[in-house]
Amino acid sequence: MMSETTGSNNATSAAPRIVTAAVLVIGNEILSGRTRDANINYLATGLTEIGIRLLEVRVVPDVEARIITAVNELRSTYDHVFTTGGIGPTHDDITSACVAKAFGVPLLRDERAVALLTRHYGGPEHLTDARLRMAHVPEGAVLVDNPVSAAPGFQLGNVYVLAGVPRICQAMFDGLKGRLVGGDKVLSVTVSAHVGEGVIAHDLGLLQERYGDLDIGSYPYFRQGRYGASFVLRGTQRARLEAAAGELRVIIRKLGAEPIEGEPLE
Amino acid sequence: MMSETTGSNNATSAAPRIVTAAVLVIGNEILSGRTRDANINYLATGLTEIGIRLLEVRVVPDVEARIITAVNELRSTYDHVFTTGGIGPTHDDITSACVAKAFGVPLLRDERAVALLTRHYGGPEHLTDARLRMAHVPEGAVLVDNPVSAAPGFQLGNVYVLAGVPRICQAMFDGLKGRLVGGDKVLSVTVSAHVGEGVIAHDLGLLQERYGDLDIGSYPYFRQGRYGASFVLRGTQRARLEAAAGELRVIIRKLGAEPIEGEPLE
Repeated sequence: MMSETTGSNNATSAAPRIVTAAVLVIGNEILSGRTRDANINYLATGLTEIGIRLLEVRVVPDVEARIITAVNELRSTYDHVFTTGGIGPTHDDITSACVAKAFGVPLLRDERAVALLTRHYGGPEHLTDARLRMAHVPEGAVLVDNPVSAAPGFQLGNVYVLAGVPRICQAMFDGLKGRLVGGDKVLSVTVSAHVGEGVIAHDLGLLQERYGDLDIGSYPYFRQGRYGASFVLRGTQRARLEAAAGELRVIIRKLGAEPIEGEPLE
Repeated sequence: MMSETTGSNNATSAAPRIVTAAVLVIGNEILSGRTRDANINYLATGLTEIGIRLLEVRVVPDVEARIITAVNELRSTYDHVFTTGGIGPTHDDITSACVAKAFGVPLLRDERAVALLTRHYGGPEHLTDARLRMAHVPEGAVLVDNPVSAAPGFQLGNVYVLAGVPRICQAMFDGLKGRLVGGDKVLSVTVSAHVGEGVIAHDLGLLQERYGDLDIGSYPYFRQGRYGASFVLRGTQRARLEAAAGELRVIIRKLGAEPIEGEPLE
């Protein structure tokens, strides 16, 4: 497991409490370029907010063996795995069956899901076999609410199976957020400046060496005819971030530029 | 290798010539949610256009061991691997060194790259050590042109190392496209209809069974107050696609709806 838990949630203790996650996007349409993924960024931002570190994303095609392998690799490596896509009523929706196979459990009809779908479609006479497929979840799974179109996602062990349609995926995740327990939140401070990366790189590297507990990223930009870079400092301890940001502002001024708090204005 | 080559490029032959690819996004900023990836869709679309099938995308953090493992897994599985991100002048730009380690070769100073950077920055006196880092590529690598900001990407074996900044990444890829040899192109036909997926699913599944050489995807939508789905048929043989699309239109009309060619209007 890429995780580490200590008994303490004290931000001043040496070892942060780290909770990790991966996202598995199941989608031929993303790989072919037909569709631009809209879920990864939403999940990444939401996970960061609740103190869960997204450490890997994979996009795989709608192919059983590929999905099963990815689910098993990711669920044994990270604390949480979120899948998106492939839980509708058509033949190409194979995620639930693949997750069941990955866990080695049968796919069973869930009566609560049947009731949700019956209500949504206006009566049992509208429950086609295809729609009933959406009421089948792996044995032991807990349903994940779908406030948009009823057909639920589910949680099995540390795997959360969400829809691919962004509005539904995001609503499912929002509903789940309350039951996810994060670790120490990764806080960030961003300072930007109209300096070339190649000019500040040396001092920035030394700053990173002095603050080994922080993660300092440099992201160049070119806006309104001016180049510069945003420096993003990330870590779990506010005081350390502020100390490093203070040193960074001194470095920027020493190079004759003015620190800009946050991202530069567009 | 997830690839298959036959001597024939004849679209009527049974076995299509398949060339595969993976994209490896190296980027803490994507995983933290700070930045929304803009390269995956561009590469996916461009690869599809030239007959290369994108079969996997991974996003990993700026961590040496993670990058090396991903590069080695992907390059041994797919015909081509495209990495994005991590080739700038700052301490967090470790992609070139990681690719060198993945291949077990040293990182060497490339004199052509030095010349490109010298010209771009206006003379050798502006070539900081940090900028010179961008002139180091793994032994045996071939430079990939950067028409935007000079610092080149490179190709080593079947791995293409591109910048992360979208404008640069895309320009590098556009320049590369001419030297990539694709297989049989995956063609697609899209037919949409205002029908519920759960209503058409049965017939659609049977259609997929009759056309095992095609890949039929169903993508629901909800637009202007109407729900429906787009059905995307993909395959290498135009005649087979058109035959299947013809049958699909009959199925849609049988359900009392009208086939819409392509995606529904917004």
